[in-house]
Amino acid sequence: MREPLKLYDLAGADERVRFSPNCWRTRFALAHKGLPCETVVWRFMEKDAIAFSGQGKVPVLVDGTRHVHDSWAIAIYLEDTYPDRPSLFGGAAGRGLARFVNQWTSEAVHPAIAKVVLPDLVDILHEGDRDYFRSTREAAFGTTVGALRAARDENIAALRATLRPLRSTLADQKFLAGDAPNYADHVAFSAFLWAHASTPVKILAEDDTLNAWCDRMFDAYDGLARSLPAAA
Amino acid sequence: MREPLKLYDLAGADERVRFSPNCWRTRFALAHKGLPCETVVWRFMEKDAIAFSGQGKVPVLVDGTRHVHDSWAIAIYLEDTYPDRPSLFGGAAGRGLARFVNQWTSEAVHPAIAKVVLPDLVDILHEGDRDYFRSTREAAFGTTVGALRAARDENIAALRATLRPLRSTLADQKFLAGDAPNYADHVAFSAFLWAHASTPVKILAEDDTLNAWCDRMFDAYDGLARSLPAAA
Repeated sequence: MREPLKLYDLAGADERVRFSPNCWRTRFALAHKGLPCETVVWRFMEKDAIAFSGQGKVPVLVDGTRHVHDSWAIAIYLEDTYPDRPSLFGGAAGRGLARFVNQWTSEAVHPAIAKVVLPDLVDILHEGDRDYFRSTREAAFGTTVGALRAARDENIAALRATLRPLRSTLADQKFLAGDAPNYADHVAFSAFLWAHASTPVKILAEDDTLNAWCDRMFDAYDGLARSLPAAA
Repeated sequence: MREPLKLYDLAGADERVRFSPNCWRTRFALAHKGLPCETVVWRFMEKDAIAFSGQGKVPVLVDGTRHVHDSWAIAIYLEDTYPDRPSLFGGAAGRGLARFVNQWTSEAVHPAIAKVVLPDLVDILHEGDRDYFRSTREAAFGTTVGALRAARDENIAALRATLRPLRSTLADQKFLAGDAPNYADHVAFSAFLWAHASTPVKILAEDDTLNAWCDRMFDAYDGLARSLPAAA
């Protein structure tokens, strides 16, 4: 048995509520590689616990004496360090294109989801994280949690429009990567887990064909994501 | 020598002005596969010339006794029919992800570019195409050419924002597909050729890092795209 890797993983007040989409990317990547992993509950106020990584954000992965931070850097590390295990990318072209999905998800989807989930996300946080989170996010979006809540319907509509290319792609194939998921699916689906954990609001309409892909991703890797409680 | 394939290719009044991004996708795919091709100048009013394909849009590719329409279907046809030639996708995962780039380009980038280029595009069309084009596009966008021209600055800003994930991806790698272009690059770059042929307006700022990728794509395949005159 190899020593499990260790992942610093953002949690809410309830430590089962692992709501960080960037940490979920790493959870899926580790499962895809078949690498056992122990998560370490981490909250925004615990900067000291990850100071060894030279920065203040999760995911931080510890692999024996080595550590890596930033979800994309971790994916590249895992792919290059464990080349004999199932590939996260399926080759050089797949790696290049997974980077595009990574950037589209971070730069187009995450901001659109954030506007929908932030008002409820504040409530699931550990009380020590709430003031930090609210003030940094309100500054980042140039608005208030109250204003986001008031504009929720239009923000949901904008999010659904942003998801259009994902929807049309998955109308014709089971996963972004084709017949089986790879890192591109991990990245895109992790954004949905963020919403799942943070808000009872349904970001997809009931008849959205993306629901079928979400179900497949919930089932993938022995139902890994089913450990995440839905927001009440 | 094999018989050249035949591609029905949309042209402006000047038949060198091949402005259709969907036809450029096929031009690049054929060059990537090393398949010789003759283009047939086609204009919107010439529906009869492609009636054999069972529909009214280009690209239509004729390969001996076979014909295929729709740029994605053509790419799949070429990949599956000529598997011993350089791959358009680099494997199953690359094919799946290229489909996502295809959909993102068609559904997010093309509408954003159209709003910028339509006012000038009308002027490069064959006179027989102008009324058809203007009326169908004004209906599609629910606006007029005049209104699009008046809103051009904000439409350019919106386009540049839409391109953000492409920009950040290509800040770290030479092509979408990594060290060499594949069909994902063909699709995304063809959108830029549409603007190049249709409007003298620069859709990218001079210091946009995407310019370097555009230059690489102009150079690719023995400078194939340099045959396209820039709009005056």
